[in-house]
Amino acid sequence: MYDIAVLGGGPAGLSAAVNARARNKTVVVISNDWRENALFRAAHVPNYPGLPDVSGQELLERLHLHAEKMGTEFITKRLISALHMGASWGLSAEDTLVEARTLILASGIIRSGKFAGESELLGRGVSYCATCDGMLYRQKRVVVYGETDAAEREANYLKEIGCVVVYLSRRTGSGALKDTIPFIQMKHLEIHGGSKVEYVLIDGQKVLCDGVFLLRASVSPMDLIEDLALQDSHIKVDRSMATNLPGVYAAGDCTGKPYQIAKAAGEGQVAALAAVAWLDQQV
Amino acid sequence: MYDIAVLGGGPAGLSAAVNARARNKTVVVISNDWRENALFRAAHVPNYPGLPDVSGQELLERLHLHAEKMGTEFITKRLISALHMGASWGLSAEDTLVEARTLILASGIIRSGKFAGESELLGRGVSYCATCDGMLYRQKRVVVYGETDAAEREANYLKEIGCVVVYLSRRTGSGALKDTIPFIQMKHLEIHGGSKVEYVLIDGQKVLCDGVFLLRASVSPMDLIEDLALQDSHIKVDRSMATNLPGVYAAGDCTGKPYQIAKAAGEGQVAALAAVAWLDQQV
Repeated sequence: MYDIAVLGGGPAGLSAAVNARARNKTVVVISNDWRENALFRAAHVPNYPGLPDVSGQELLERLHLHAEKMGTEFITKRLISALHMGASWGLSAEDTLVEARTLILASGIIRSGKFAGESELLGRGVSYCATCDGMLYRQKRVVVYGETDAAEREANYLKEIGCVVVYLSRRTGSGALKDTIPFIQMKHLEIHGGSKVEYVLIDGQKVLCDGVFLLRASVSPMDLIEDLALQDSHIKVDRSMATNLPGVYAAGDCTGKPYQIAKAAGEGQVAALAAVAWLDQQV
Repeated sequence: MYDIAVLGGGPAGLSAAVNARARNKTVVVISNDWRENALFRAAHVPNYPGLPDVSGQELLERLHLHAEKMGTEFITKRLISALHMGASWGLSAEDTLVEARTLILASGIIRSGKFAGESELLGRGVSYCATCDGMLYRQKRVVVYGETDAAEREANYLKEIGCVVVYLSRRTGSGALKDTIPFIQMKHLEIHGGSKVEYVLIDGQKVLCDGVFLLRASVSPMDLIEDLALQDSHIKVDRSMATNLPGVYAAGDCTGKPYQIAKAAGEGQVAALAAVAWLDQQV
């Protein structure tokens, strides 16, 4: 059981981790590989105060090392679900389950953009996790949607265990996908079915399937956490970075513009200290 | 005429300067010597993200150099007054006058704590600036209140030009004060007079004088800027760090807790970008 789970490993999440560890709370950061952060590809960051000549990669590396040095634990997996269980949150990151007393949402800008039918058929054929649910679809038809090499590798895995896989992407070409898997470049996806998934419409084209794996780089916390209040399509927070849910804080781009590093780091600090104060009140 | 005047040279002010310069606005920072910031004396700062092993002095130095490198101008003097003049603000920093289209208040935590009679008699015997008003009191009795060596040096200056000086402080001893100036350690000060200052009460003891120089290390922007809205004794801001006054922003400790560096730097960035957006709208 962690005191604090930080969802997101960019500047906001790493700053939250540094600051929560400075206050001696146990912290786990659940995120994609930090090298997948868009900041990693920024050639030059001129305006992070105190580090005038830094590349995005170097800055992220410094933030990551700082959090590591302070004793942060990391789970480098995609968050699949977050369930409120009274006094704590149960989090599944692919095949790993953790429990935490508070959450800090620091997922960056993630467009929610669900597909038609996605919410209605989630758990009834729609899955966010190949590792978790793949075995249910051996010898069955599945479509896999993704935008990353990691998603393509998960499609390869589904193929390996015996699923009949079609891979969909908005990308113009595949990276890691096996030649034996059909690759369809698509614009629109609709998921159809009654009590379970029956078919998808790919740009209007009907494709029969039993399962649909939606392997986005990240799932928005707005989609994972029930009843989280939004404002102008960002997570609604007050000046202490508290959301509308007790013990749940947010920081960084997901709380609104400007999408900037120092702002994110500052909010991560404020969110961490607010979470620490909240934890100390619960005792 | 500067685009932005930043009042305060700590992490919030320096971050604001870095970010406003990154957006190519002209920026002046008006502050005490940055080495007088309380952070300068912090042996170890564990939680400024990206710089894990840093002393307060090194961190301030880095922030200051960063702001300088970006082309920030600095005026290392005490701000004496800030007057709204329609489309701009007129600022006097001791003997230097500057004009700026927007303000970013980043003064840190400054207790307002005015003395009784101070507001009523300001400009009628009460002054915040020895350099500005000293000559008016040649051959006259003045009391000088201060808590710093700099204030003591200003008392020396008043003595030199021929004022009859008594120096008051809450400090237990003097640093730079000349032996020829009486030093009174005091707790409470009241300033009395009708159309002008007539006497002060020092812990109840009546001392006749024509002038009272109040040389605090900084004058709170809350005292200098009329109609600035406060909340819980901090400057009231919204999520874009806007105060209740158009074109006036605030960042850092003066906006509220936590009193922390990353929070201050983040707010400085947000305030700067909001000021930039405001400036661009005025054109």
